Amino acid sequence: MPHLLFRGVPAERLQSVAEPLVEQLAVICDCGTDNFTMNCVHATNVFGALPGDPAFAFVEVGWFERGRDVRDRFAAAVTRYVSQLDIPEVEIVFHAYREDSYYINGKPVE
Amino acid sequence: MPHLLFRGVPAERLQSVAEPLVEQLAVICDCGTDNFTMNCVHATNVFGALPGDPAFAFVEVGWFERGRDVRDRFAAAVTRYVSQLDIPEVEIVFHAYREDSYYINGKPVE
Amino acid sequence: MPHLLFRGVPAERLQSVAEPLVEQLAVICDCGTDNFTMNCVHATNVFGALPGDPAFAFVEVGWFERGRDVRDRFAAAVTRYVSQLDIPEVEIVFHAYREDSYYINGKPVE
Repeated sequence: MPHLLFRGVPAERLQSVAEPLVEQLAVICDCGTDNFTMNCVHATNVFGALPGDPAFAFVEVGWFERGRDVRDRFAAAVTRYVSQLDIPEVEIVFHAYREDSYYINGKPVE
Repeated sequence: MPHLLFRGVPAERLQSVAEPLVEQLAVICDCGTDNFTMNCVHATNVFGALPGDPAFAFVEVGWFERGRDVRDRFAAAVTRYVSQLDIPEVEIVFHAYREDSYYINGKPVE
Repeated sequence: MPHLLFRGVPAERLQSVAEPLVEQLAVICDCGTDNFTMNCVHATNVFGALPGDPAFAFVEVGWFERGRDVRDRFAAAVTRYVSQLDIPEVEIVFHAYREDSYYINGKPVE
């Protein structure tokens, strides 16, 4: 946590910026880098971009809400690093988890 | 936006109806077709249908809430087109994004 | 419904516990086993665990809210079975669907 799920970003390209991106996000969130996970979901684009055309990245962030300022800086950092991968359009949606609905090893977080 | 994420629908089959489906959804939502994305997620079914048996499609729609009437017509259109692919069961869930939690190129939508 | 989506769990391993897990979840939820679906999403881990190291499983459960007691027992059962697959860390998030935003074959559930 936070969990970042990327669609439209090839894993090997994301790999090249993963380390500095997570380091920056850890500073923004004031937590350790070992809290983060980043995954590239395998999906086939059927509409919205040419197949194989990495013109559009969609990033879902699952986390516990940290407020507007942190969210803005988090989104700016993700956008900046993904843009470096020659992906000009980046959309990010944040999903705020409820603490009573999040379980680590069987125990709710709250 | 809206983003449609399909599970249990082979991409090449969805491709065959993607264009007319999006055109109809654009009319229902009163927006351009270039607002839509459609992706087929690669997943392995472990329980709930026989492997390789496309008996069940699950569709997640991420969007900004447009109200009951639009939602009903949106769901009806998706169901109708997916049914044409010989997939008799279609379940659809709508996720309403918060505008202050959705960022396009680093800027929140609201 | 409920829908379980696994990340970081190989499908063939999950297969080995799917049947008893779903049977137990059906008891906990007081419904038939045919209400459940279980899918393994194909994703490439880019940060958060070594590639190919199944040290961490993330499970998303989409359902209609059933309250704290059922949720606790549901999470405990999923955690117990996934742990048997030599995956020591399991995180589970529950997404409560709104009944007016869930459509089965074109009809809202509510």
